Amino acid sequence: MNPQTRAQLAKVSTATLCTALFKRGLRRQYLQNVQPLNPGLPNMVGEAFTLRYIPAREDLNTIEVFKDPQHPQRAAIEQCPPGAVLVIDSRGDARAASAGGILVSRLMKRGAAGIVTDGGFRDSPDIAKLPFPAYHQRPSAPTNLTHHHAIDINVPIGCGDAPVFPGDVVVGDAEGVIVIPAQLADEIAAEATEMTAFEDFVTDEVMNGRSIIGLYPPTDERAKDDFAAWRRVKGR
Amino acid sequence: MNPQTRAQLAKVSTATLCTALFKRGLRRQYLQNVQPLNPGLPNMVGEAFTLRYIPAREDLNTIEVFKDPQHPQRAAIEQCPPGAVLVIDSRGDARAASAGGILVSRLMKRGAAGIVTDGGFRDSPDIAKLPFPAYHQRPSAPTNLTHHHAIDINVPIGCGDAPVFPGDVVVGDAEGVIVIPAQLADEIAAEATEMTAFEDFVTDEVMNGRSIIGLYPPTDERAKDDFAAWRRVKGR
Amino acid sequence: MNPQTRAQLAKVSTATLCTALFKRGLRRQYLQNVQPLNPGLPNMVGEAFTLRYIPAREDLNTIEVFKDPQHPQRAAIEQCPPGAVLVIDSRGDARAASAGGILVSRLMKRGAAGIVTDGGFRDSPDIAKLPFPAYHQRPSAPTNLTHHHAIDINVPIGCGDAPVFPGDVVVGDAEGVIVIPAQLADEIAAEATEMTAFEDFVTDEVMNGRSIIGLYPPTDERAKDDFAAWRRVKGR
Amino acid sequence: MNPQTRAQLAKVSTATLCTALFKRGLRRQYLQNVQPLNPGLPNMVGEAFTLRYIPAREDLNTIEVFKDPQHPQRAAIEQCPPGAVLVIDSRGDARAASAGGILVSRLMKRGAAGIVTDGGFRDSPDIAKLPFPAYHQRPSAPTNLTHHHAIDINVPIGCGDAPVFPGDVVVGDAEGVIVIPAQLADEIAAEATEMTAFEDFVTDEVMNGRSIIGLYPPTDERAKDDFAAWRRVKGR
Amino acid sequence: MNPQTRAQLAKVSTATLCTALFKRGLRRQYLQNVQPLNPGLPNMVGEAFTLRYIPAREDLNTIEVFKDPQHPQRAAIEQCPPGAVLVIDSRGDARAASAGGILVSRLMKRGAAGIVTDGGFRDSPDIAKLPFPAYHQRPSAPTNLTHHHAIDINVPIGCGDAPVFPGDVVVGDAEGVIVIPAQLADEIAAEATEMTAFEDFVTDEVMNGRSIIGLYPPTDERAKDDFAAWRRVKGR
Amino acid sequence: MNPQTRAQLAKVSTATLCTALFKRGLRRQYLQNVQPLNPGLPNMVGEAFTLRYIPAREDLNTIEVFKDPQHPQRAAIEQCPPGAVLVIDSRGDARAASAGGILVSRLMKRGAAGIVTDGGFRDSPDIAKLPFPAYHQRPSAPTNLTHHHAIDINVPIGCGDAPVFPGDVVVGDAEGVIVIPAQLADEIAAEATEMTAFEDFVTDEVMNGRSIIGLYPPTDERAKDDFAAWRRVKGR
Repeated sequence: MNPQTRAQLAKVSTATLCTALFKRGLRRQYLQNVQPLNPGLPNMVGEAFTLRYIPAREDLNTIEVFKDPQHPQRAAIEQCPPGAVLVIDSRGDARAASAGGILVSRLMKRGAAGIVTDGGFRDSPDIAKLPFPAYHQRPSAPTNLTHHHAIDINVPIGCGDAPVFPGDVVVGDAEGVIVIPAQLADEIAAEATEMTAFEDFVTDEVMNGRSIIGLYPPTDERAKDDFAAWRRVKGR
Repeated sequence: MNPQTRAQLAKVSTATLCTALFKRGLRRQYLQNVQPLNPGLPNMVGEAFTLRYIPAREDLNTIEVFKDPQHPQRAAIEQCPPGAVLVIDSRGDARAASAGGILVSRLMKRGAAGIVTDGGFRDSPDIAKLPFPAYHQRPSAPTNLTHHHAIDINVPIGCGDAPVFPGDVVVGDAEGVIVIPAQLADEIAAEATEMTAFEDFVTDEVMNGRSIIGLYPPTDERAKDDFAAWRRVKGR
Repeated sequence: MNPQTRAQLAKVSTATLCTALFKRGLRRQYLQNVQPLNPGLPNMVGEAFTLRYIPAREDLNTIEVFKDPQHPQRAAIEQCPPGAVLVIDSRGDARAASAGGILVSRLMKRGAAGIVTDGGFRDSPDIAKLPFPAYHQRPSAPTNLTHHHAIDINVPIGCGDAPVFPGDVVVGDAEGVIVIPAQLADEIAAEATEMTAFEDFVTDEVMNGRSIIGLYPPTDERAKDDFAAWRRVKGR
Repeated sequence: MNPQTRAQLAKVSTATLCTALFKRGLRRQYLQNVQPLNPGLPNMVGEAFTLRYIPAREDLNTIEVFKDPQHPQRAAIEQCPPGAVLVIDSRGDARAASAGGILVSRLMKRGAAGIVTDGGFRDSPDIAKLPFPAYHQRPSAPTNLTHHHAIDINVPIGCGDAPVFPGDVVVGDAEGVIVIPAQLADEIAAEATEMTAFEDFVTDEVMNGRSIIGLYPPTDERAKDDFAAWRRVKGR
Repeated sequence: MNPQTRAQLAKVSTATLCTALFKRGLRRQYLQNVQPLNPGLPNMVGEAFTLRYIPAREDLNTIEVFKDPQHPQRAAIEQCPPGAVLVIDSRGDARAASAGGILVSRLMKRGAAGIVTDGGFRDSPDIAKLPFPAYHQRPSAPTNLTHHHAIDINVPIGCGDAPVFPGDVVVGDAEGVIVIPAQLADEIAAEATEMTAFEDFVTDEVMNGRSIIGLYPPTDERAKDDFAAWRRVKGR
Repeated sequence: MNPQTRAQLAKVSTATLCTALFKRGLRRQYLQNVQPLNPGLPNMVGEAFTLRYIPAREDLNTIEVFKDPQHPQRAAIEQCPPGAVLVIDSRGDARAASAGGILVSRLMKRGAAGIVTDGGFRDSPDIAKLPFPAYHQRPSAPTNLTHHHAIDINVPIGCGDAPVFPGDVVVGDAEGVIVIPAQLADEIAAEATEMTAFEDFVTDEVMNGRSIIGLYPPTDERAKDDFAAWRRVKGR
């Protein structure tokens, strides 16, 4: 990812990014039903590296399988590139964990940018204390083997009813997670940065008592002038 | 609303109000699946002012529609009376936002008493920091246009599977939100105030080790006497 | 319960317990969709004492029924033994409360170890402040009479899609709640204690930058040696 | 059950019975999400005899348990009285069967009036061919042991979110199933019979082109007169 | 509606109409979870006339309310124009009926084209025998008063998560129901008629053993020629 | 597949197969929420050939994509081997179709054994008339592009919350669909054939008035003798 893009995405909200994608006809890039374990962190930004689960078959998911160093869940943790976000397709099923505290810690130490599942994490109280962005549906203590069979690494997946392709740019904030198609990342980051400046201006005006009519969107010419003045003052 | 009613409702819980309504045969006035973004605030109390969404049709919900000063979402924000609560029928669909930080801020500045949706808010981390009661199902970053078409202002609606008529009295606390039919507000407020005194007495007794049998409800005469004494001491 | 078992269970996580049960073929002992109101407390540990609700019939669930000292909800609160956990089968229905602040307070004062429902509690903000473990699905202000008819005390029930037999050992942490069949409690507690030592060792190693391959599980002989050394140093 | 009551209930619809119960404040006696396997049969009418399932625990639900002649599922089939309806609380969970073709056949041969579950039946194509009323949510081939543990016979249960007490009168038609509290059965049967006569009259009139205004309900005096005449002609 | 449009829509499928709307960016005009009670009938075609329900409030929904000739449910039945389809917003809630056999019969006699709800109908076995298109989610015997409060006639609504505006063209077949925005009806009807001819040609070819590659869509020139020949032979 | 195995599986029920798999610890091989469009056909038996969908991204799922002869949905139809069953992972999402009448017809003509999705089919009334087994959740007219992006052919998938590996043996009857792990197919087919003989014997006995106690399972020695005699008479 372009370093400027990464820097810009670190400072815009998923809400603003949703609108920028909506303008381009992309309506389902926001992950449904996924929330941060540790909402106080800066934005998560990174390319998607994926793990795919299918429903578990009991004979293939005994506790012994973790002894295989190629087990896809463990392999994903060790192969996810620094700066990337591990996104897990758990079919929205939080009855068993997608991963736990030890694996998430290892992923953090390896330099990943974050981890996301549409299922749940176990050891969630521990994960919530790490300085590492993690998003899930809800806590889930049972080992992944209980309901999930790890099958694939870095293939296109669904997560939270959104399509996720390896290399897409994943952004998370205290609200949730959005996936930006790789080829749009630069332009979306730039546009969202501009939008954010305008929204910050509007917020200032609203807090000063101004009506949103004519201001948001700026159908009134004066709103445009005021924004230009605000930018000069604020240096944005 | 009668100022005394408003003052009384500011000091009772939605749980107590549910029971007072239950005694009158009203069993579904509590909003299901709606929670506060900022649970540390005092009670929200105000008359319902409503906004109704239907499912979005793509050609009618482009980003351009916000340029219309009559767009019902924007109009609702500017027309909701001071002291009222804006209640939004989002059909329980939180896949897209019902409103965002800027609009909620404007509503606050205009003097509204709070905002409620059975869908979700975007910019929820910002809204959670405002000194303004807001209740939703879960955070949702996508713009309302993605799934919602704003159609009506101040008509009867459903919200959280409860019926809401304009002018009904809406009360929210750290637990959730309840809707009191307008004509019952005064008597319910008075009755709930009395019930709250009794419940506070019972809580004191229970914390001192007393059994609930005979005390809650006070089938034992002594409980009634003790309550009378407690009221004298407490001045309630 | 064996005091050593109780002491051990106070120091292990529900995630670790899930794995110990999974190894024995028990895959559904973790309660789905149940969360702590007060996640900062030490583990909840106690034998299950149960209350069963069926759907309410309106003529049998008027406000008057609480005057009966034998009403099963009130009786359960007064009969639950000290050290036990009251587990309530609410059929996963949180539209009305399973219990409220006064009853939970009384249960606490009577020395119970905690309370669990797969429905919701009312007065949840108050309950969240008690030094007493309580777990539910979500807050719910309506009185239990609105949707629940209390029918049985201390019979086998389902809670959170898990089977719960009276006397089973219930453990809760900041993640959730698990039910251990009574006859397995001692061996599971011992095994989980050993597993916890190993997991703590692994966490230390991972935080020091070690790969999970060969370490977790310890297929590499060196991992076993390092763990033995770690135990000597840590005195565990 | 009074034979006249049984005869009357055989000729009225669950819809009419719902309204008769609604008039008495009973709003949840109709079983939600339950449908007939064989909708061409006459009404099912009988007293409720119940079976309660809780979630299965794997060690208690091996295939061997059926060798126990006291296994509650098998015992329920052999103990359900002739003329009664076996109503099963499957917690609305149709992932595994509540019963199968052989057991349903045996129940039929024993003279029961029907069988109802809020889960599913296995061998449903076979059951659909029996001259025996059976109602479920959807077909489900897995043996009950997969998700259900049979625990109790003839205790109060929930089924389809309705309360069911042993001895309540259960009526099923091609639409669904309703539960009438035992003490109301006679008066409800009589009232529903009268209502059915009126509804049949109204249907005749509507089919002849008459408006429903003034007719249904008969606020117009002429409607009452016409009904009286119709009854004389029809001998009802 | 243009009579030719009505005639054309009577002979195309909802599946074909979905594709024609999809090409114009309209992705949510098909009603989710709605099925025909009587799938053997010809297509239903008519302009939407709507009825809106909100959740019932017990004091406003006693059995007496039907005595009011202006009650919106009864009024809708008597006001729906001949040739129109009555579409009911039941908020997807089938716990109580949207209407029953008598009202549906009256609507049929008045010349309406059909009736649709995203809830359920009572007397569904009777309705299934009428020569009148009716679509719902599932049978539901309880009177509408149990959960629905009729509030509005002929306003924009949601039904089956689709937007429905009065005057939109509603088409139903044995699969389900679709809503065509009024201004697109003519062009969609014409385009779908052409598409249907092509699909019938393709079906004939496929049944004769031809591969779909190059044929569907007709990227192979020969497919276009064959279709032209087929049209000449078939006179379409 | 062994021809004898195929022949045996054609004559046993999915219910019996569930039990045989349950005995081996496999509890989730039955597809949840999947039903036959044409329940009157003989059993469907074939090896699984799979198609995987992820959520649609609007820019990648325009109507133009079908022009690509490699589009995975179209390729799957043309590549599925004769005698195989095409099993589609639609993530349980029936808001858009998994396939339609033309593609299913082509698959039938190519000699496939059947088609299964955990979503829905469009043109379902046409598919229901084909002499070809098809199973889905419910009818769904919108083109697959509306919500599904075809991504992979013949990889392991989930369908109806069951794990499906290419080559697994898929069996469908009038009740539903089950997946037998490839390596177990022969032994399961043989065992189920034996079980079916016994169940047919039991059904005969039950229809003659015999109790299930001692008979099913045959804990009574006489039951075993009677079964042996029955087999001799029936030649099974």
